[in-house]
Amino acid sequence: MVAVVGGGQLARMMVPAATALGVHLRVLVEAPTTSAAQVVRDAPVGAAADDDAVRGLVTAAPAADVLTFEHEHVPNALLEALVAEGHPVHPGAHALVHAQDKIVMRRRLTALGVPCPRWTELPDAAALDAFLAEVGPAAVVKTARGGYDGKGVRVVRSSGDVADWFAALADGGVPLLAEERVPFTRELAVLVARRPSGEVRAWPVVESVQRHGVCSEVVAPAPDLDPGLAREATALAVSVAEGLDVTGVLAVELFEVPGADGAPTVLVNELAMRPHNSGHWTIDGSVTSQFEQHLRAVLDLPLGETRARERWSVMANVLGSSHADLADALGAVTAHDAGAKVHLYGKDVRPGRKLGHVTVTGDDLDDVRARARTAAAVLRGDSTEEDA
Amino acid sequence: MVAVVGGGQLARMMVPAATALGVHLRVLVEAPTTSAAQVVRDAPVGAAADDDAVRGLVTAAPAADVLTFEHEHVPNALLEALVAEGHPVHPGAHALVHAQDKIVMRRRLTALGVPCPRWTELPDAAALDAFLAEVGPAAVVKTARGGYDGKGVRVVRSSGDVADWFAALADGGVPLLAEERVPFTRELAVLVARRPSGEVRAWPVVESVQRHGVCSEVVAPAPDLDPGLAREATALAVSVAEGLDVTGVLAVELFEVPGADGAPTVLVNELAMRPHNSGHWTIDGSVTSQFEQHLRAVLDLPLGETRARERWSVMANVLGSSHADLADALGAVTAHDAGAKVHLYGKDVRPGRKLGHVTVTGDDLDDVRARARTAAAVLRGDSTEEDA
Repeated sequence: MVAVVGGGQLARMMVPAATALGVHLRVLVEAPTTSAAQVVRDAPVGAAADDDAVRGLVTAAPAADVLTFEHEHVPNALLEALVAEGHPVHPGAHALVHAQDKIVMRRRLTALGVPCPRWTELPDAAALDAFLAEVGPAAVVKTARGGYDGKGVRVVRSSGDVADWFAALADGGVPLLAEERVPFTRELAVLVARRPSGEVRAWPVVESVQRHGVCSEVVAPAPDLDPGLAREATALAVSVAEGLDVTGVLAVELFEVPGADGAPTVLVNELAMRPHNSGHWTIDGSVTSQFEQHLRAVLDLPLGETRARERWSVMANVLGSSHADLADALGAVTAHDAGAKVHLYGKDVRPGRKLGHVTVTGDDLDDVRARARTAAAVLRGDSTEEDA
Repeated sequence: MVAVVGGGQLARMMVPAATALGVHLRVLVEAPTTSAAQVVRDAPVGAAADDDAVRGLVTAAPAADVLTFEHEHVPNALLEALVAEGHPVHPGAHALVHAQDKIVMRRRLTALGVPCPRWTELPDAAALDAFLAEVGPAAVVKTARGGYDGKGVRVVRSSGDVADWFAALADGGVPLLAEERVPFTRELAVLVARRPSGEVRAWPVVESVQRHGVCSEVVAPAPDLDPGLAREATALAVSVAEGLDVTGVLAVELFEVPGADGAPTVLVNELAMRPHNSGHWTIDGSVTSQFEQHLRAVLDLPLGETRARERWSVMANVLGSSHADLADALGAVTAHDAGAKVHLYGKDVRPGRKLGHVTVTGDDLDDVRARARTAAAVLRGDSTEEDA
């Protein structure tokens, strides 16, 4: 029995895997209507920040075999207390903190010798101006905690561009850091899973395409990736999983950059310790989905094979829609493409919101990518639908 | 919203597809602990033969868009009444009767010119003795209704071998029929789906291996199948779906037999109008699973692509187990074979009971088949586990 904190689409997508494996899921949902709450039979309502709600999720009879998460916003002191009382928690608080706090993450990765963009903590505006003088003309300022999907991230050219954040910081607000603006060729991601007893498996390295700070498309495997760089990126992700003692699924988001010698290399952008958007393609495209693997890993079961079932998989996110309800477009998208695998999250439509995704697999990358984009456009209700 | 009568593993395996498509499932379960009841959020308890329970399943707010089934044991008069009241039912009672009553099925297939084993109705023992004189030395006697997995089927050499059934028949019991004992080469199955507006799609023809009257293994596609025979079998299944106005998934079980001219041909053995054991391989092996396709079809949505994702898929059933709980063997089977896809049904262990299945996919049939068999053996707790 696996207890999961968080009732969004990531918990929802654990349902098929749990159903097949015969694993009971108990999910702490924010409201009775969330994405996961619609499909999970055992879904108590409560807040992730509420110690009693999280404790109840784990200890209610029958007690959970393990506690895990679909997001990082959980009370670490409680997690440590639960572990001390004999309730396994994966990933553990000591690992999870690296996905919660970008300063903690950068310090640790730097100490491990993992290649990162140049970065610095920002105790005040002067620190940012000094950093800009070094890496300028622009840099990326981030809040250490609470950011996601482009929120809590701002590209700046002077400390005045984040005066509001420094004011909040002076008021005891969230710490800030700055990172160089990396001249990357593209973004890659490596998804690995690690179980407590040590086994690690990685999926093929993927290319992740972002629009407005949000993932819009993932291509698996990353096209034209140098095999040596693929090995380097995979080894790096495995070393992060091991160095940070991550259990469950870890997503390592990377920048591909030209190296000093002209050969491409990678820098770590972000970490997520849970199933991740860059791994949604695995549901339809790999022998083992990231959701099944996460359940196996946190239960300390042997991990599944991660090879791709077909040559190419392309996953396209559906971000917002002009349809009142995405279900209204299900017929249109399936009529348009019988092979597009549609995943709807059961969420109310809002501009830019992740409402679902589509995966297409096949032998020809151009065809697969065009089909995935068109299917997502049909679900968004774009007028390009008629052109396709 | 799809209402499903029956809370076994077939309804359970609709959950992953419904979750991805954002389709709400409401399942009438026999008890709160059945295979489907464990994983379906909206699962009222009631009997399939209880008109009020089935009516409530359809009409409770929000009303279901369609009523469908995971077994054939449903009250047809009620289904017809629901349709008359404007509630779609798929497959309809007029089609379903052919899966409920083997005499009705044989009469209709014979009228359609579909090749069947020689057969006859058995009003009395004399009719059987006359049939044996024609097709003997042995024949297969079946109860027209209520049989499944080898139950209600008996191989006989004289009417005395089913004296008990004739006695029951004389008491107003279930009608009987006899079929010739077909000297088949092997058993094949064709799975098709048909939507109310007419679209039909078929999966590749599979070979089905039975032991003691129960399916033990399915190989997709059927090895060494003559391409002409594959086309013939597929066309035959499509003609049955159309001729009987089947909606949803239809499984046509076939005998492959040597034809009059020496070329192999097929005869129809049984029909099932629902997802079927011969199609479980589609979950992991095909672009569209039979469970997703059944939901699409009964909702009259465009059907999905039915091609196999890999060269070979082998599905092995787990019939009974020496493990007290199959979940105890999950670690063993995944340790043994990282690529075996395990599907557990959450059922209590009983000798010979269908408790789960395993599918393995890949390029080499001998390897894939051996791996599927071994994984199923590990789940059964066979001692061969150590030899493998």
